[in-house]
Amino acid sequence: MKVAILGFGTVGSSVARILCDLQPENIRLTHIFNRDIARKIAEWVPSTVIWTESFDELLRSDADVIVELVGGLDPAGTWVHRALEAGKSVVTGNKKLIAAHGIELDEVARAHGVHLLYGAAVAGGIPVIPGLRQGLAGDRITRIEGILNGTCNYILSRMEDGAAFAEVLKDAQKLGYAEGDPTEDVDGYDARAKLIILSRIALRAGLQVESVATRSITRIDAVDFVYARDLGCTIRQIAKAELHNDGVSAAVGPMLVPLRSPLSWSRSTENMVLVSGQYGGDVVFSGHGAGGHPTAVAVVSDLITLAHGSRPVDLASRAVQVSGEFQLRHYIRFVVKDAPGIVAEIAGALAAEKINIDALFQRPGYQKDRLPFVITVEPCAASSLHRALDRIAHAAWLAQRPLDLPMLGD
Amino acid sequence: MKVAILGFGTVGSSVARILCDLQPENIRLTHIFNRDIARKIAEWVPSTVIWTESFDELLRSDADVIVELVGGLDPAGTWVHRALEAGKSVVTGNKKLIAAHGIELDEVARAHGVHLLYGAAVAGGIPVIPGLRQGLAGDRITRIEGILNGTCNYILSRMEDGAAFAEVLKDAQKLGYAEGDPTEDVDGYDARAKLIILSRIALRAGLQVESVATRSITRIDAVDFVYARDLGCTIRQIAKAELHNDGVSAAVGPMLVPLRSPLSWSRSTENMVLVSGQYGGDVVFSGHGAGGHPTAVAVVSDLITLAHGSRPVDLASRAVQVSGEFQLRHYIRFVVKDAPGIVAEIAGALAAEKINIDALFQRPGYQKDRLPFVITVEPCAASSLHRALDRIAHAAWLAQRPLDLPMLGD
Repeated sequence: MKVAILGFGTVGSSVARILCDLQPENIRLTHIFNRDIARKIAEWVPSTVIWTESFDELLRSDADVIVELVGGLDPAGTWVHRALEAGKSVVTGNKKLIAAHGIELDEVARAHGVHLLYGAAVAGGIPVIPGLRQGLAGDRITRIEGILNGTCNYILSRMEDGAAFAEVLKDAQKLGYAEGDPTEDVDGYDARAKLIILSRIALRAGLQVESVATRSITRIDAVDFVYARDLGCTIRQIAKAELHNDGVSAAVGPMLVPLRSPLSWSRSTENMVLVSGQYGGDVVFSGHGAGGHPTAVAVVSDLITLAHGSRPVDLASRAVQVSGEFQLRHYIRFVVKDAPGIVAEIAGALAAEKINIDALFQRPGYQKDRLPFVITVEPCAASSLHRALDRIAHAAWLAQRPLDLPMLGD
Repeated sequence: MKVAILGFGTVGSSVARILCDLQPENIRLTHIFNRDIARKIAEWVPSTVIWTESFDELLRSDADVIVELVGGLDPAGTWVHRALEAGKSVVTGNKKLIAAHGIELDEVARAHGVHLLYGAAVAGGIPVIPGLRQGLAGDRITRIEGILNGTCNYILSRMEDGAAFAEVLKDAQKLGYAEGDPTEDVDGYDARAKLIILSRIALRAGLQVESVATRSITRIDAVDFVYARDLGCTIRQIAKAELHNDGVSAAVGPMLVPLRSPLSWSRSTENMVLVSGQYGGDVVFSGHGAGGHPTAVAVVSDLITLAHGSRPVDLASRAVQVSGEFQLRHYIRFVVKDAPGIVAEIAGALAAEKINIDALFQRPGYQKDRLPFVITVEPCAASSLHRALDRIAHAAWLAQRPLDLPMLGD
């Protein structure tokens, strides 16, 4: 099986490195494509490999499989499409492309008798996709809860240990964990793309990318970790999707996670996926979700799968209605200029939306004019809670907009 | 694809139940075999299913796949062999059979153009085998550490919370977690069979069952959990195998596990597998390892894999030398009739084998004539340690034989 690598960055060169080291049976690296290819040529790559900056040359070549590691929708999408139409199988780690166009690209592959594998698109080195496809095909998965973005997990687990957001973000950028513009990560778009892919495979539900609401982790403050701990919890960026009779609830954003839940155990850039099946109960996968080598392992595993003539179990997904609503307890953190009657006003706004207060936490030692306290409420839909908070959005005693976070169960 | 179930116990009836509920595409249950079949017939099974107590009838039937859930080496092994030779694929959860004869049965399957799948043989509802086969084929796995026996994990995690061994074992038997004769579980034979299978798939190493040493959990006492906690650890039955240049080290038995390690997080009957790869780092799988439904999920997943024409990645294993030696820190718990000079004598015995003492722990509040204390030693081979302990085996001050446990790293 002749393999061409499209995109010779961190992951692409890790793939080449592993192929050279392990020399898996029946797999030969024949082409490497990149822009400005001259600056990429590495002496450790076998001399038989052809270096090129022409995609058309790859397409005309006798390569059987194209490994697409360029990323993004364009031109990667066009290239993947053309490769499949030219009768070449494609292995990709492009979550954005697979989230947005995976279903149609699967069809193109099927129509041309070739394969499209994307184990590297979600949680890199953790075999979640093969685990779900092959290993849990016999269950009916009803829920996914994942820590799918290593950058956010690094930031939040460092904040849990007392560091401040801005400082940690700077460290993450220095360490190469975060981009110069961290929007994709911290605002949840990266995790959302992965949740869309997992929902397709595990819940067999086709979700439109834009239909899943995301919330940023940027509003999380040190004080939230203090109160979270009082509640026996910590805070993680969670991507959650749940099957209902009439569709799927899905959302991505910071949530309170009980310290007893495996989701609280992931530290640094680790990823974790927890799936719940009707028959098999909860299954947890965790490990390194990103980085050159772990992601390359997923790519090479897909190549070996193809070389062995092993075909993934391909179960059809169906388009479903998506809502962002989960009936969950919520954490609401207020920062107020202290005055009498504040709690009464909040309680009134919540009561108007039929939301019951669960508990109120107020730690001593803060300034009266920027006083943080927390109210937790019994399970309710986020939309009702937001309506309640809208009622008090203009209250003079608010020192800043309240922060509300869903609270996951054990 | 026509499916016959061989053995209609807990798992067999769960498999039938899931097949009836989910009705996976292209899979039809056609036969159910059991001894004394009359008492097994269930009215919720479709009336088209043929109930039989004749294995030969199954063999002559048009069933494409036999699901073997009888367990044990004989007659299950003969039946699996004959089914494969008759051109029928086999899906089995029989860890004992696959550990002892998996390699030759794989060859029989290959020779007859059929398939042998056994995802249910290790950690039931957790897709470890497909995860390793398909998802981590592109890595070089160097180490496996697993909690592979739910009974032991139930016992030890209950003891961690303060319960006594005998009491917990009785509860486990009452709950159906442990057999009347718990030897297979508590002495490590069940976990060993699973470790043999995982080593074959992940390390590509063919280990002889008897070559892997096992130690029983029955000597663990409440006081060991107290001292383990002082050391930032707990105790679990661990099945461990590690690749070396000249072979594999493998062992099964109770070990100290740091509270920071994921292995300490598994509670009750949960299973967990931690694999370490040269490129992808650590990956953790956890979930329900046993029970009718979780095990049946693995069986049905294998059936769906076959029905979709998906073939598992099949990488050859090679026979290797096995040793039980790991260079690990060790925990040694003594119970002594207190007298001067005991520590000097122990230190002398250890020094004679060039083993360095790391620390000594002695909690107050115990009787002088049955005084428990703990010595930890720097990394050494278990065999050296046992030689050292042999030197003092007949000391008059020993109230009981010392207990030594390996200590896993973070």
